[in-house]
Amino acid sequence: MPSERRGRSGRRRRGGDAVPAEAREPTIRPQPRRLFDPVPAVSEDELEAIHRTALTVLQEIGIDLLHDEAKAILKDAGADVAPDGNRVRFPSDLVEAQIGKPPETFKFFCRNPERTLTFGGDRLVFGAVSSTPNAADFEGGRRVGNFEDYKQFLRLGQVLPAIHMWGGYPVEPTDIHPSVRHLDALHAALTMTDKPIHAYSLGRERVLDGIELSRLARGVDHETLEREPSVITVINSSSPLRLDMPMVEGILRMGDRGQPVVMTPFTLAGAMAPVTLAGAVAQQNAEFLAGLAIHQLNSPGAPFLYGGFTSNVDMRSGAPAFGTPEYMKSALVGGQFARRYRVPYRSSNVNAANAVDAQAAYESVFSLWGAVMGGAHLFKHAAGWMEGGLQASFEKMVLDADLLDMVASFLEPFRVDEAELALDAMREVGPGGHYFGAEHTQSRYKTAFFAPMVSDWRNYEAWSGAGSPTAADHLHRLYKEKLALYEAPPMDPAVREELDAFVARRKDEGGVPTDF
Amino acid sequence: MPSERRGRSGRRRRGGDAVPAEAREPTIRPQPRRLFDPVPAVSEDELEAIHRTALTVLQEIGIDLLHDEAKAILKDAGADVAPDGNRVRFPSDLVEAQIGKPPETFKFFCRNPERTLTFGGDRLVFGAVSSTPNAADFEGGRRVGNFEDYKQFLRLGQVLPAIHMWGGYPVEPTDIHPSVRHLDALHAALTMTDKPIHAYSLGRERVLDGIELSRLARGVDHETLEREPSVITVINSSSPLRLDMPMVEGILRMGDRGQPVVMTPFTLAGAMAPVTLAGAVAQQNAEFLAGLAIHQLNSPGAPFLYGGFTSNVDMRSGAPAFGTPEYMKSALVGGQFARRYRVPYRSSNVNAANAVDAQAAYESVFSLWGAVMGGAHLFKHAAGWMEGGLQASFEKMVLDADLLDMVASFLEPFRVDEAELALDAMREVGPGGHYFGAEHTQSRYKTAFFAPMVSDWRNYEAWSGAGSPTAADHLHRLYKEKLALYEAPPMDPAVREELDAFVARRKDEGGVPTDF
Repeated sequence: MPSERRGRSGRRRRGGDAVPAEAREPTIRPQPRRLFDPVPAVSEDELEAIHRTALTVLQEIGIDLLHDEAKAILKDAGADVAPDGNRVRFPSDLVEAQIGKPPETFKFFCRNPERTLTFGGDRLVFGAVSSTPNAADFEGGRRVGNFEDYKQFLRLGQVLPAIHMWGGYPVEPTDIHPSVRHLDALHAALTMTDKPIHAYSLGRERVLDGIELSRLARGVDHETLEREPSVITVINSSSPLRLDMPMVEGILRMGDRGQPVVMTPFTLAGAMAPVTLAGAVAQQNAEFLAGLAIHQLNSPGAPFLYGGFTSNVDMRSGAPAFGTPEYMKSALVGGQFARRYRVPYRSSNVNAANAVDAQAAYESVFSLWGAVMGGAHLFKHAAGWMEGGLQASFEKMVLDADLLDMVASFLEPFRVDEAELALDAMREVGPGGHYFGAEHTQSRYKTAFFAPMVSDWRNYEAWSGAGSPTAADHLHRLYKEKLALYEAPPMDPAVREELDAFVARRKDEGGVPTDF
Repeated sequence: MPSERRGRSGRRRRGGDAVPAEAREPTIRPQPRRLFDPVPAVSEDELEAIHRTALTVLQEIGIDLLHDEAKAILKDAGADVAPDGNRVRFPSDLVEAQIGKPPETFKFFCRNPERTLTFGGDRLVFGAVSSTPNAADFEGGRRVGNFEDYKQFLRLGQVLPAIHMWGGYPVEPTDIHPSVRHLDALHAALTMTDKPIHAYSLGRERVLDGIELSRLARGVDHETLEREPSVITVINSSSPLRLDMPMVEGILRMGDRGQPVVMTPFTLAGAMAPVTLAGAVAQQNAEFLAGLAIHQLNSPGAPFLYGGFTSNVDMRSGAPAFGTPEYMKSALVGGQFARRYRVPYRSSNVNAANAVDAQAAYESVFSLWGAVMGGAHLFKHAAGWMEGGLQASFEKMVLDADLLDMVASFLEPFRVDEAELALDAMREVGPGGHYFGAEHTQSRYKTAFFAPMVSDWRNYEAWSGAGSPTAADHLHRLYKEKLALYEAPPMDPAVREELDAFVARRKDEGGVPTDF
């Protein structure tokens, strides 16, 4: 979008004709579209071999399912449920029958209709970092997650147009008691920002509260909410092959109300999954398919997504690694399976760096490379993730926002028409000339190219004269500048009152039990 | 290659059971192979529209050609050569007739038969940084290129197995007089390393000296050299639409002897080419096709490569930018044209950063993303390039070598067979278990995953306890460690004597004229 680019270049540090950014930068940007076919990493035969292995795992080994209601649903449908335990074995035809029931694409809503998102097809969705226990910036260093930092991330994520939605709490506000944390956290997200939200599957009450808060924020009735999904949840199986109670509860209660569920097995090859990637992805599929069966037997046709998170560990230390070659390959294969299972595909922008340095950058771009070429739709942790998920970084959120904008620009069509082919300009300039002064150039120069926030393209002399700022220096300055631009999006006072009242009432009721 | 990975992980900083790296790390690694189809960015119709525009440019506008012999060759073939000047216009059928004459794949030789490379097909070739006027490391800072730094880059590049060949001088040894610089520089490359070389097209004598030195280093006769290309050159047109004398001389003299020529127009959109990418690529094609016509009319069937270098400029400052979204898109389209013109494709690993920081990393990985998915064969500047080509960095060379190794690992097949599917391991571990102790894991754990040099995957506590080293810190240490591993490859004393004698004789003759 030329007007957006112009807006962004007006923000840049290198002076000149910059105008106040407030007047120019939109906080909403259209979803990028992937116009090329995703890249496969295995053949169709190999894909089927992995799929059949997953079916065998489910039929022969089974999974441990710690949820009586779900066990009953599966038993009714013909699964083999151990009478004295939690082991459930799935007949392959039962599993296969669930494939194709959820929608391949769906729309996702929030309090701002202009931020309605499409999941699936050729559209990409970028969600902010989530679920990290620590926050960090260069000034304050790394600290345990708290509500103040949480709200600062909300502000920064609201300002950065690359971020389409929340994928959970950017950082865990651990200074709020767990019984009411979700109430304060979601209330803040729904009032301080107008981007779509996520609710954690940490038991029935939190899920139901999240659904109700997202409904109140939109000011719609229950039927509209069920027709128009407005809150999403992520289900992480306890790999290998185990689904715990709160997660299954999330699958069921979100499904009851037609709100989308992302099934993401946490299959780190060599730790919670086989050390070989084909085995790890087979297990990922087994866990996905188990979740799909529970979900679709309970709520046929409700939206359900395939989440790929297979990566490897450092085999010396056991530490998880991300943005690795193995991660990239698994991201391509994950996309093949999402298409095989005909549901939208979730991947992530991840890295294992401790510092916002070259490692953080290359692991992130490698992650994006695998996810984009693999055909991912939902990019979780797309902005701000560090340290294998243990840290949300303010500076990294700005870096990632710029990387996402570059990906979006890369995905824009390479236009070919008479004006773009520029034959008249080549006639005008001729051999040995220069294009800068040509009318063809002058009429486009403000909008011709993507203008990044972070990249410092000054020549060495100008750059060193300015104190040799690194990308990290720019990021620190930029995140402060961006935060200063934050404005709370307007909200109907009646809606605000309802949200406030709901949270107050639920707090009076004691929030949720914390002893599960 | 599992044994290589084990070797590399043995080198890592995190202690434990490391053994002396000299005993373990090979300096030769097989060429990576791209096993998926390249990704197109434009339709076949759009591709043809750009191609037809290039033909129109050549037929109607023409190029300025500053070389009488080439003008005569083209005139004989039916081109319209202005009698009183340098403008040459190419009939489209003359241009079209040259397409398909050079080989789609060829082998490239050097003094070490184990380092023979394949250009084209599904193989990738990584060439070191070249042609930069400045060298830098963190300790000594940035300095004007000199012979000592040049030789240090030779040593580092010889040690790093990711680097397959030289793409020119890693840094310009400006302290050697231009009349004899090529003699000392190529003599050093051919004696201190056994990787294939490049000779600059800076006039007839330098090209002929480069060909003869590469022949002497291999100890082969002239016929063998002409059958087995052993030195490559890059031709940069003086965009827009101009070919200078020394470059054309390179096209002709390298072609005479069957040595490969890479035709790379320097089409920066908005400066030396139209501001629109379709126009810039159309001009890139026009300049490529002009070079192809001269080359193939003079030396039919000699190897000729399509070089894509289209990028954009910062429209505020005019500074070139690299690794941008525009660069990535042009890299995809460049690959489509190389395939359209049925020759191997050269792209690059480039960035415009002044510091080895996050920007250097993300611009490089974006460049690699475009080049790899675009189907590039020769990756020039693959390791060490900084600052838009104005700086070769020792630390960046190590960073890039690691990035290249990651790309190579990503390109390795995703294997699917019974052992990889790991059904028995999943049976053994079962729901809720852990894979680390499983036999399936233990028998693979040393070789299962790519082990990077640079990435620091320690947890935050261990990392901060070690002084919070950034990637830059690791890179500085690593380049020193790698340099210390350098050993001169063995050379037959008779061959060495011939090389010494040739250089001595040519120096006695005064080297080459420097007044062209």
